[in-house]
Amino acid sequence: MVSDAVADTAERIASMDVRGAATIARAAADALAVEARESDADTPGAFRADVTAAADRLRETRPTAVSLPNALRLVLGGMRGESVPELRESVITAVEDFRAELDAAQDDLGRVGGRRFADGDTVMTHCHSTDALACVEHAVESGKSLSAYVKETRPRKQGHITAERLRELGVETTIIVDSAAHHFLPETDHVLVGADAVRADGAVVNKIGTAGLAASASERDVPVTVAAQTLKLAPRTLAGHPIEIEERDPGEVLDPDDGLDVAVANPAFDVTPARYIDAVVTERGQYAPESLVTLMRDRYGDRPDDVFSE
Amino acid sequence: MVSDAVADTAERIASMDVRGAATIARAAADALAVEARESDADTPGAFRADVTAAADRLRETRPTAVSLPNALRLVLGGMRGESVPELRESVITAVEDFRAELDAAQDDLGRVGGRRFADGDTVMTHCHSTDALACVEHAVESGKSLSAYVKETRPRKQGHITAERLRELGVETTIIVDSAAHHFLPETDHVLVGADAVRADGAVVNKIGTAGLAASASERDVPVTVAAQTLKLAPRTLAGHPIEIEERDPGEVLDPDDGLDVAVANPAFDVTPARYIDAVVTERGQYAPESLVTLMRDRYGDRPDDVFSE
Amino acid sequence: MVSDAVADTAERIASMDVRGAATIARAAADALAVEARESDADTPGAFRADVTAAADRLRETRPTAVSLPNALRLVLGGMRGESVPELRESVITAVEDFRAELDAAQDDLGRVGGRRFADGDTVMTHCHSTDALACVEHAVESGKSLSAYVKETRPRKQGHITAERLRELGVETTIIVDSAAHHFLPETDHVLVGADAVRADGAVVNKIGTAGLAASASERDVPVTVAAQTLKLAPRTLAGHPIEIEERDPGEVLDPDDGLDVAVANPAFDVTPARYIDAVVTERGQYAPESLVTLMRDRYGDRPDDVFSE
Amino acid sequence: MVSDAVADTAERIASMDVRGAATIARAAADALAVEARESDADTPGAFRADVTAAADRLRETRPTAVSLPNALRLVLGGMRGESVPELRESVITAVEDFRAELDAAQDDLGRVGGRRFADGDTVMTHCHSTDALACVEHAVESGKSLSAYVKETRPRKQGHITAERLRELGVETTIIVDSAAHHFLPETDHVLVGADAVRADGAVVNKIGTAGLAASASERDVPVTVAAQTLKLAPRTLAGHPIEIEERDPGEVLDPDDGLDVAVANPAFDVTPARYIDAVVTERGQYAPESLVTLMRDRYGDRPDDVFSE
Amino acid sequence: MVSDAVADTAERIASMDVRGAATIARAAADALAVEARESDADTPGAFRADVTAAADRLRETRPTAVSLPNALRLVLGGMRGESVPELRESVITAVEDFRAELDAAQDDLGRVGGRRFADGDTVMTHCHSTDALACVEHAVESGKSLSAYVKETRPRKQGHITAERLRELGVETTIIVDSAAHHFLPETDHVLVGADAVRADGAVVNKIGTAGLAASASERDVPVTVAAQTLKLAPRTLAGHPIEIEERDPGEVLDPDDGLDVAVANPAFDVTPARYIDAVVTERGQYAPESLVTLMRDRYGDRPDDVFSE
Amino acid sequence: MVSDAVADTAERIASMDVRGAATIARAAADALAVEARESDADTPGAFRADVTAAADRLRETRPTAVSLPNALRLVLGGMRGESVPELRESVITAVEDFRAELDAAQDDLGRVGGRRFADGDTVMTHCHSTDALACVEHAVESGKSLSAYVKETRPRKQGHITAERLRELGVETTIIVDSAAHHFLPETDHVLVGADAVRADGAVVNKIGTAGLAASASERDVPVTVAAQTLKLAPRTLAGHPIEIEERDPGEVLDPDDGLDVAVANPAFDVTPARYIDAVVTERGQYAPESLVTLMRDRYGDRPDDVFSE
Repeated sequence: MVSDAVADTAERIASMDVRGAATIARAAADALAVEARESDADTPGAFRADVTAAADRLRETRPTAVSLPNALRLVLGGMRGESVPELRESVITAVEDFRAELDAAQDDLGRVGGRRFADGDTVMTHCHSTDALACVEHAVESGKSLSAYVKETRPRKQGHITAERLRELGVETTIIVDSAAHHFLPETDHVLVGADAVRADGAVVNKIGTAGLAASASERDVPVTVAAQTLKLAPRTLAGHPIEIEERDPGEVLDPDDGLDVAVANPAFDVTPARYIDAVVTERGQYAPESLVTLMRDRYGDRPDDVFSE
Repeated sequence: MVSDAVADTAERIASMDVRGAATIARAAADALAVEARESDADTPGAFRADVTAAADRLRETRPTAVSLPNALRLVLGGMRGESVPELRESVITAVEDFRAELDAAQDDLGRVGGRRFADGDTVMTHCHSTDALACVEHAVESGKSLSAYVKETRPRKQGHITAERLRELGVETTIIVDSAAHHFLPETDHVLVGADAVRADGAVVNKIGTAGLAASASERDVPVTVAAQTLKLAPRTLAGHPIEIEERDPGEVLDPDDGLDVAVANPAFDVTPARYIDAVVTERGQYAPESLVTLMRDRYGDRPDDVFSE
Repeated sequence: MVSDAVADTAERIASMDVRGAATIARAAADALAVEARESDADTPGAFRADVTAAADRLRETRPTAVSLPNALRLVLGGMRGESVPELRESVITAVEDFRAELDAAQDDLGRVGGRRFADGDTVMTHCHSTDALACVEHAVESGKSLSAYVKETRPRKQGHITAERLRELGVETTIIVDSAAHHFLPETDHVLVGADAVRADGAVVNKIGTAGLAASASERDVPVTVAAQTLKLAPRTLAGHPIEIEERDPGEVLDPDDGLDVAVANPAFDVTPARYIDAVVTERGQYAPESLVTLMRDRYGDRPDDVFSE
Repeated sequence: MVSDAVADTAERIASMDVRGAATIARAAADALAVEARESDADTPGAFRADVTAAADRLRETRPTAVSLPNALRLVLGGMRGESVPELRESVITAVEDFRAELDAAQDDLGRVGGRRFADGDTVMTHCHSTDALACVEHAVESGKSLSAYVKETRPRKQGHITAERLRELGVETTIIVDSAAHHFLPETDHVLVGADAVRADGAVVNKIGTAGLAASASERDVPVTVAAQTLKLAPRTLAGHPIEIEERDPGEVLDPDDGLDVAVANPAFDVTPARYIDAVVTERGQYAPESLVTLMRDRYGDRPDDVFSE
Repeated sequence: MVSDAVADTAERIASMDVRGAATIARAAADALAVEARESDADTPGAFRADVTAAADRLRETRPTAVSLPNALRLVLGGMRGESVPELRESVITAVEDFRAELDAAQDDLGRVGGRRFADGDTVMTHCHSTDALACVEHAVESGKSLSAYVKETRPRKQGHITAERLRELGVETTIIVDSAAHHFLPETDHVLVGADAVRADGAVVNKIGTAGLAASASERDVPVTVAAQTLKLAPRTLAGHPIEIEERDPGEVLDPDDGLDVAVANPAFDVTPARYIDAVVTERGQYAPESLVTLMRDRYGDRPDDVFSE
Repeated sequence: MVSDAVADTAERIASMDVRGAATIARAAADALAVEARESDADTPGAFRADVTAAADRLRETRPTAVSLPNALRLVLGGMRGESVPELRESVITAVEDFRAELDAAQDDLGRVGGRRFADGDTVMTHCHSTDALACVEHAVESGKSLSAYVKETRPRKQGHITAERLRELGVETTIIVDSAAHHFLPETDHVLVGADAVRADGAVVNKIGTAGLAASASERDVPVTVAAQTLKLAPRTLAGHPIEIEERDPGEVLDPDDGLDVAVANPAFDVTPARYIDAVVTERGQYAPESLVTLMRDRYGDRPDDVFSE
């Protein structure tokens, strides 16, 4: 039986009280640290069983999430020792290391990605991604002047958040409707987006609209950059598991008060094949999407048991 | 000096009380008929001068419109005779002929376009076009069952009108955000749009978002059909004149109350090159966009004076 | 009531005793000549009614054929005069003219098309087309040495006929399976095919496999030439009428004796969009497919009653 | 036997003393006028024979030229009358008309083409074309500010002439090597070139390097404009005749003094398929290249005897 | 001198008594195990020499095969120890491990690949591949309903075998001629093929027709999946060695009894560049083809002596 | 303070007395060996500081060069030991190893690359690259007969050197102007170029004109091979650092004596995205460009301090 702390965290993740890839990852790692600290197991085997059970409990709250199992894999992968105290210490250290890495990751990523822009460049964005913003921030901080076309990103218009942040960074920002993207591509130097997940075959899962934008841009030789921490790499896809494309509330698209009696399709994400992406920027450097599997294996193993054996 | 009727119509067009390509065309033609009826010119020359002055007055209200000068060209082109009564009669007849043609045009177009669809096809639409709807209507009336993906078409969401009309026609209709179009193209058999104007080189000016949709579709071999009456052919473009791309109110994109202090670009139209369009459907039949210049010349002359001499 | 000769011809066309675009066209024209000769109508009106009824009877035997109604249109279009003898004479002359044109057409077409090849060129063919062969024949007769990759063209392997004819012409001929076409495109200077029908929007209907070959070739800048007499232009498509894609006998694909209990899809034709075709060669010269509508209107009228009014 | 004036002009054309499409055309037309004036034929038949013989003599000097036979066709096409004086007058008038048209053509073309540019646009040019320059000149005269990337156009570096002229027009001009064109396409709004000849299928024959530039530009959605007077339309291509691609002196590419003992290939022209061209600008207006055959037939007939009967 | 067992296996491979990538690999590995067991070498050096000689003997039977040298590399790579018994044991164990891996590989691959399909998908296949079938089998076993277009795959119509197997798996299967593939792509969700060999640069060598199908599909955004065990990775290509494209018997294409006196080209394979492939599915997971070199190096070394030193 | 030898080498590199990727690398490595030999440091720490200071001094001479820091990284990476003599020895050995590798690299690369060509192939080259030539040399030495189209490569016409070398190798060589490349692509089997630097995302920086040639070739399925030793891999790009595109002397493009008063743009390089390249050939084997990051990390570390920490 898992500890109350783990159960509580699991519940908060399941109920979506805890949201966002990095926030979920942190909460899960912390819960494992608590479990390690509080476990009253008196044999190494029992201790291992406790921590693994805790991880399993946390993992099953969002079986298709990406960052959650990655955090668990990294922490469990750091568990080692011959005695309970050694094992406990190793887990706590692994959690601390993971948190430290996570804290630095976005900044490291931003530094790498920011270098891809030249002074005077115009960037087009889709949806809202703090990883993507970190790239712009570093570019601006290093003295480059940037402009941006910001797609509003229906249905939830997260482009407004992006626009607000870019304005605060001193970027000359212009909002456009999503349909206008193609029209402004000839005045665009880079397309910059985030990612919800990256597959082993290099395809990127991101907010609906990314695939069309990336296809259009790359066919016209406007480089497409995806900003994604390694936490977004999805090891399950190495074993062929799909990333589920969630269908969101129709009310996001059509106000029920409109009285329009038609169906709505509102997929949250789409899949951009690797060939439409020029580079994926991570905290470990930039890669062609086709070679990200190298990083995925570095971080999560080339045949993680919890992925291949399911 | 032009008659009060002409002055009044001119004013109502200028103030946009009279709107819509066909409505403007009808109003202008009617005004010429009134002018012809009421002119007190006592020589053929004076009569011609009166009618021409009326046409000039009307034309200058919206110098870049397409249907207005086309209507004037067609009526003036029908003016003939040796005496004032003959001339008067000819103008009135030309106006009646023009109105009769206009009344039949959308139906004729719809019949032609409707034949392009097969039973069971799925159509994707952008914005709202009564010419495009006429095609769907005729297909449905001839017993074909159709489905539709309707892009909402930000900023003004004219897709809602299209969706409502399609539902009334019994078409299984699904609304999507504009960004989702690329995602649903593999399930689409035809892209169907209208046109604000068609250029001599076959390029189509239509609601922003058309060019990206058409490029994406035709590169993936989903046929793209444009529904456009010959009234939309722009003879000025034969002489190289551009179709102005109007910049619309930023408030359409961004609610001032949002307090978002960034620029907005809100172009009304974009330009789709002929190579991304499979066919343009008119009331005179369907044509490859590259050959529409043939119809343009048939209707408005191969070197209309008011176009080349400016 | 139509004459026995017309009824007999109609029956032979309907039963497919008479086959082949040009053969059907000749038979139908001849039948009209007989009708004109034998009609005992004693007023111009009655004579016209007789001939028109005969044409209608013939037309309805194969409502979706292309050459048959074209022949009828051309002959009826030549009927003129104030008296029965004048009308009779005009029909007989129109038939003679039509036959003379038809006799010369393939040779004229071949002369035009043959000039597109240069000495030493390699041509890739699909299916069997006497129009296409006429181009090769003229090129060879004018002293050019050609080689050919001949796709066998499953299921009926009409490529074998093409190969035999090319060999007789002295062309160095290599047969390949259809799947090998892409592999040999880099060694190919021209793709050359015939057509079953050409649409008003420039799309070409031809033997299944043409569309894929043309797309592949033109995307790689190997020019694609279609050889098609103006008899293959389908005026009905001006009014949006589709060209039906016939589904052929599954036994052509799968020998029933194979005992393979699976479905077969065996469409006879596919549709090649105009953008994958460089030129269509006719007896009136070569045209971009997008502009063939010009020839179609020259020959069959810009709004033939029997096409738009249906 | 042709007159001395005709013989002299023929010789000067053959020896290339008279060069340039328009100059040759003018000289040939003038020679026909002289012939008409000086002919001592005393019957209409003899007069026609004289003028036709003169035209034949002139035509055979450069059998593959484009403007020369076009000029002769236009003048001969104007010859009419029942008597020698009438015929004489008609030829002289036809020559005058032709000259007047030719004088106005480049200016008319420039006015049409100039309207395709917007204020602030950047144009990329290849080789040197006075038709293309006329477009820029009109744009500048109408108050638009333009910039230009000028490809130097090896081997003869005609780009230097273009650069000089553009500078004189006040265009901000930057010379680049030909290889740099692709690099500067993202900063280019229009590709603008001239033409040596335009084929019936819409393909354009122009200075080597045009095809690659146009393919690259249009695949990346930078519009490609060809400036070509109708004198450049090649009616012979309607009948399938090729435009010969002249092989130029290797010394243009490789200085013999370099002592480099390798082969040189130096084709003067290449062929750009219609699908890579957005519009062809002529003195009669702008057209999609695929529909230029319409103008070709307007000017030179749909089946000119001297083209099809060869 | 190699043992009789090795000589015998070598002979059976050379004479093609033993065929098929996996079967050859197993036979060769077994022969090494026999050699290890039977070697009477009395020093470690002599033992190593014996086994290596056996491997060399086997390898040279089919110098361009892929699976044969891979099997030998894997077994030799497992040979280790200080004494003859240790060495012997290590070879025998390596062979056992290799066989166990091989036995599991297709099933593991199928599990990975099967996850790429969604319920209701339509798959298009070319030729016959048990690796590809394993993917479909796993998808079906996991409860997904699939349909299939099966290209017959001339000349040997291995598509018939595929169709039979798919039918047995309960897949709704439709056979088409190879030329019809392009026509049915819009109704296809996945293209699925096997591989004869995969190159270090990610290009895939497979049955003639694969390259055209993959190009056509991926240019139209239909994902292309290649199913290939790591045994198909060709380490020789790391060093630039080509995969020979075998020319097969003309009689496969043209029945000699047809009496058709023309040449036949019958290449067995073609090469699909990596950019037309979305993913390669192996028993170690799925990869972008461009990154398969990672697996190749994992399995066979980054500079295998027998590859680079030749 | 660094030794005189280091200071002298640094100066010669800075002044460009020492030029060329490999020559600079050799000089820098040699200088480190001298430093190691001559250092009078008496503690391991002091010795390390000496050598590191020397490396820093050398590195800063050309901060954006690729081969220079790579050489320094490789030598410093080999420094190990507990005592000064051990450290000294390790540096000297590392330099010797590096030199030995460098000596063999071009030959090894050539052997790998040469295998990509088949007997009778035609290769198109751009600029001059000894790595690329090594591939041709090996192909020729292995008995293959090759032809070549050599682009002259304005502005400096390094194609002349390539042509001279190819002629010496017995390759049938034809020089063309750069603009003619597209025209001769259909007769070309391979495009072969060198590289100035290769980025972590697989993009290749090379002589201006490479990107356009590669795009044109790969879109038409002519394979593009880049020959580049691992010394050209740019680890700084892993961290997002750009490769600066040097602007060269305008005098290279325009002779000042020409008196042409216009601007010149003369960028030395352009950037070819990975998707236009089929393979990069190195001394360690051939790779898809997208996976070269694997080699980059093998050679220079996955997060080299001097790259990420800047």
